[in-house]
Amino acid sequence: MNKKEYVIAQLGRAKNKKYESYVVNRIIHLLNDFDIKFVTQQYVSRNENSRALTDLFFPQFNVHIEVDEGQHFNQINIEKDKIREADIVNATGHRVWRIDVTKTLDYINDEINKIVTEIKRLKSENIDKFQAWDINAEFNPETYIKKGYIDIVDNVSFKTISDACNCFGHNYRGYQRAGARHSNESEVLLWFPKLFLNADWDNSISSDESIIIEKNLNPERTSRHVQRIKNDPSREKHQRIVFAKVKGNLGDVLYRFRGLYKLDLQKSNETDGLVWKRIASKVKTYPHSV
Amino acid sequence: MNKKEYVIAQLGRAKNKKYESYVVNRIIHLLNDFDIKFVTQQYVSRNENSRALTDLFFPQFNVHIEVDEGQHFNQINIEKDKIREADIVNATGHRVWRIDVTKTLDYINDEINKIVTEIKRLKSENIDKFQAWDINAEFNPETYIKKGYIDIVDNVSFKTISDACNCFGHNYRGYQRAGARHSNESEVLLWFPKLFLNADWDNSISSDESIIIEKNLNPERTSRHVQRIKNDPSREKHQRIVFAKVKGNLGDVLYRFRGLYKLDLQKSNETDGLVWKRIASKVKTYPHSV
Repeated sequence: MNKKEYVIAQLGRAKNKKYESYVVNRIIHLLNDFDIKFVTQQYVSRNENSRALTDLFFPQFNVHIEVDEGQHFNQINIEKDKIREADIVNATGHRVWRIDVTKTLDYINDEINKIVTEIKRLKSENIDKFQAWDINAEFNPETYIKKGYIDIVDNVSFKTISDACNCFGHNYRGYQRAGARHSNESEVLLWFPKLFLNADWDNSISSDESIIIEKNLNPERTSRHVQRIKNDPSREKHQRIVFAKVKGNLGDVLYRFRGLYKLDLQKSNETDGLVWKRIASKVKTYPHSV
Repeated sequence: MNKKEYVIAQLGRAKNKKYESYVVNRIIHLLNDFDIKFVTQQYVSRNENSRALTDLFFPQFNVHIEVDEGQHFNQINIEKDKIREADIVNATGHRVWRIDVTKTLDYINDEINKIVTEIKRLKSENIDKFQAWDINAEFNPETYIKKGYIDIVDNVSFKTISDACNCFGHNYRGYQRAGARHSNESEVLLWFPKLFLNADWDNSISSDESIIIEKNLNPERTSRHVQRIKNDPSREKHQRIVFAKVKGNLGDVLYRFRGLYKLDLQKSNETDGLVWKRIASKVKTYPHSV
């Protein structure tokens, strides 16, 4: 995927929502700066139990744009929107800017101009720290090996399990298993789970991503798995760097960095499965040692 | 319908064509001038027998934009596109500018910049003659009464039969019949036909709009109708100002001016129906005489 395909697919996503499409397109075209990354329809954590979808997200500035169509404007929904916005801000530290598209075209266009000006200001004010959007570097393990770490605030995903493994001392091509050892930290496993109900597992992650529950659909297998992991620390690791298998914004498969998780020995049991708690949102990377 | 609803609905129309949507949105947002009218997916005559759909049309400048996606680029299609473009240019005097969206994003954006610059130049070079897009005036009979005429090059449509009649000396409200007398020119009838197959009639218009054929689905009624019109000029008129009932760009009903047509007595017959030939594409308007 190159930047052209990304930009055009992203701008085409709000196709059944005319007002959202108008606002998103106008912001991106007037901003007219493809060093600035944008994501349409971005999931963000609200709190432990829920997530929200925002209409446009600028990850370099942690700014979300929300298009308020008619349905937002009865009193109950205004309250709900405020709570939702506060949740997003509290959970992520991000900002949410809103546009009321029930007003006139001139009003909407003025608001869009303000947003565009503000985004440009955020870039120029932090021009020393600003990293131009590089869609190839983004998915390249080398980028993170050079950086020395992977941090959840950078929204890191890889296209393959091998690419993710190669940030931790490996030099894999075509590695496909859902677990891999860490080349440099013996107590840590690299894990690539599906964090949703699938053919074998009923794994889940809390909305704020702090807790993962690992459970097999077969109660017997869950029981055996929990026993094996809990009772034999030498055979498997009790810390895992997690890259969740997800659908990317464009329908492609990605392995998205979620953090370093540690087994919660007290809460894990043979019925409910293993409970993993996040203990770090930033992990060290390692070059391949030849 | 106000300008806001129009603009947003028009920009939302290419929703299943990502590249077309990108180009159309980017041109309109960078042009950023809502005194300039635009129409997406505009029908234009190619010749007597066919019509084409162009992706974006600027009626004030008679310029069409065509987005060339991959399928245009085999040799046969390139030839077809050239013929199609030549047809449009010959039939209408309009210009067609193309954008090849199989190239890079930078190339596409450069081409869009050129188009935007050129449209701005066309406006500023003709600023004396330029009439700002006024979506209310456009549908108001007063606009054309003041002007003194209705011309096909101005793409004139009305929302009701009354509005059209009121350009010719009437002061109707709620008039709904498909024919009306002309207040000032006794030999002329105002006609509001459906120019497509419908429950009663199988009317049709040639692609270049020069010929209309009027025919009832019931052969006996066609025969009687032709006899009555041909043989009794005093009972009906042999000239008709035609406003065809059409679906507007946004799915609304409109009566679109097609010109002044005259009965072709030689070609009309009781089997094939009445044949009307266009004799003028511009007609005089009249105020209501109190």
